[in-house]
Amino acid sequence: MNVKRFKENPLITPEDVKPFHDNHEVIGVFNAGVAEFDGETLLLLRVAEQPISEHPEVVKAPVIDFTNGTGKLRIVDLDKSNPIYDFSDPRSINFISDGRGAYLTSLSYIRLARSKDGRHFTVDDTPFIYPGTEREAWGVEDPRVTHIGETYYIQYSAVSPEGIGVGLISTKNFSTYERHGLILHPENKDVAIFPEKINGKYYTLHRPVPKGIGRPEIWIAESDNLLYWGNHQYLLGLSEDGWDNGRIGGGAVPFKTEKGWLEIYHAADQNNRYCLGAVLLDLENPARILAKTEVPILEPEAEYETSGFFGNVVFTCGVTLRGDNVRVYYGASDTSVAAADLSLEEILSKLTYL
Amino acid sequence: MNVKRFKENPLITPEDVKPFHDNHEVIGVFNAGVAEFDGETLLLLRVAEQPISEHPEVVKAPVIDFTNGTGKLRIVDLDKSNPIYDFSDPRSINFISDGRGAYLTSLSYIRLARSKDGRHFTVDDTPFIYPGTEREAWGVEDPRVTHIGETYYIQYSAVSPEGIGVGLISTKNFSTYERHGLILHPENKDVAIFPEKINGKYYTLHRPVPKGIGRPEIWIAESDNLLYWGNHQYLLGLSEDGWDNGRIGGGAVPFKTEKGWLEIYHAADQNNRYCLGAVLLDLENPARILAKTEVPILEPEAEYETSGFFGNVVFTCGVTLRGDNVRVYYGASDTSVAAADLSLEEILSKLTYL
Repeated sequence: MNVKRFKENPLITPEDVKPFHDNHEVIGVFNAGVAEFDGETLLLLRVAEQPISEHPEVVKAPVIDFTNGTGKLRIVDLDKSNPIYDFSDPRSINFISDGRGAYLTSLSYIRLARSKDGRHFTVDDTPFIYPGTEREAWGVEDPRVTHIGETYYIQYSAVSPEGIGVGLISTKNFSTYERHGLILHPENKDVAIFPEKINGKYYTLHRPVPKGIGRPEIWIAESDNLLYWGNHQYLLGLSEDGWDNGRIGGGAVPFKTEKGWLEIYHAADQNNRYCLGAVLLDLENPARILAKTEVPILEPEAEYETSGFFGNVVFTCGVTLRGDNVRVYYGASDTSVAAADLSLEEILSKLTYL
Repeated sequence: MNVKRFKENPLITPEDVKPFHDNHEVIGVFNAGVAEFDGETLLLLRVAEQPISEHPEVVKAPVIDFTNGTGKLRIVDLDKSNPIYDFSDPRSINFISDGRGAYLTSLSYIRLARSKDGRHFTVDDTPFIYPGTEREAWGVEDPRVTHIGETYYIQYSAVSPEGIGVGLISTKNFSTYERHGLILHPENKDVAIFPEKINGKYYTLHRPVPKGIGRPEIWIAESDNLLYWGNHQYLLGLSEDGWDNGRIGGGAVPFKTEKGWLEIYHAADQNNRYCLGAVLLDLENPARILAKTEVPILEPEAEYETSGFFGNVVFTCGVTLRGDNVRVYYGASDTSVAAADLSLEEILSKLTYL
């Protein structure tokens, strides 16, 4: 696969983003939703801020506290010697007893970056979407943007101690917006809503993470109104070995081609190495897979993709399209935003039909 | 709490049910949905059948195989010395590597039992709802029945290697029925749909089981059409200790009282001892809890409740109502069906208001 990474990569790094919270550092700006609005390319950056700890034996966990109705940042100090917690994952502090997440080490929210050329971005000074309900007390993450009519629908992970669900927000101007609550219950993420009705129904990809039976794989659901979803169907599973045997999930918002709906998704192996693949879905019934790539179309190779806060990760939430050019914006190593141009024709030629 | 257990308890035991499959035994008839239809009380029994193994070192796992389009029972022989499986749970064979379910030890389906007096039941000879799709390859379990207008909506756990989701079936005559696919994605069970619209929306209780963050607790969702669900809200959580600190989930279909919607739910402690509790929800907004019982209203005490295939379990999927009398049908020890009469007034008097 001929991947034309931008020479400017990484496009946006933590150094480019001023922390919104006092005594915090930006540890990641990544996994950005993509929208084209008013002649500009907008990136809906996931910004992760971490409280600065003065003491090497104290980990500070940020939460938004809604006890008094409106959210307020609260920092929880955790002693690294506390035997009930496992501090080995850089992303979360887990209970040793059952492995369940006790806290996250950073708070994520969504911030806008704007560009006239899709290459040089200016980052807004303040958050665009900030945790606004108890179900977002641990952050909002990994937005995708689906443009339908005059409205942009933003789908994102809503994280709280009660689980990771999927929130929906709509906007017409990227200034004001409306919240629509959780459209999918925990544990679920990686939602990507199709940009038009298909035979009278809206469709979305989603990725449940079941506990007792099943694995993190891609499902598809349908809806009349984008708010209520049902007829959940299993779509694309893990392989037993190879680059996609650990977890798999929707990536970019699917787009229409002559051959079918094309979805650029992510998959990780058992070592948490995240790559991008492509799958082609039936134009009339997107719950039917026509073809998929047997090998990744983009994998961590550049230094900013192999090293960082959580290395060996490329993860897309959106693309822009110009003729044959598919411009993939992607998070690199949970640290920065990068982009690469791929040829649609070449992606389609790499697909293996079932 | 004054619990009037039926003197006939257990009402239906595995001995009362002839196996549907050759070379199988019925190991459980339990967790029955309840409906009143045509002057009779119907129980939608969960019947669990296990293949008979002639060799003590071979465990036989039943699956419905849809490879050729229509489902066909297939028996998988598993050697107890196989090091990749954990055989310690009587209900499932799990992968040692990640604890995930590899097979179930029995296949569940739904069978009808009929009674004129709600006390003496005749069990049908053949299944009513049998696995009918790939998402039910490991069985259909734990039905609840919600009566709306002329239609009975049956909500049940649809179990397959891809996870435990929630299926919906509607019937008007308990003879023919229509499938509506999965209304909730894995991992979820213990759905109980309210019997009428509330301020223009249908509501359901449900119980996700998230993997990374969160616990098995009760959520509530809303719908326009019973098929598509959204606005998922967290409703009732575990306690940190006591009878309800392990898992909690919806039980009977909620019913209306003057004080609010009354829900009789189940909760288990860390030792998997399952009891029933009651929670009162706002008549106008069932996502709002008004009151709940601090102690169980029914707990495993009788011999058939403390001993069996999986002992120390009482688990309800439905009740019938006559004036002040709440007749609770419940599964006992994942083995048999029992019933008890409780006073509505007494349940309401035991509630602690928030």
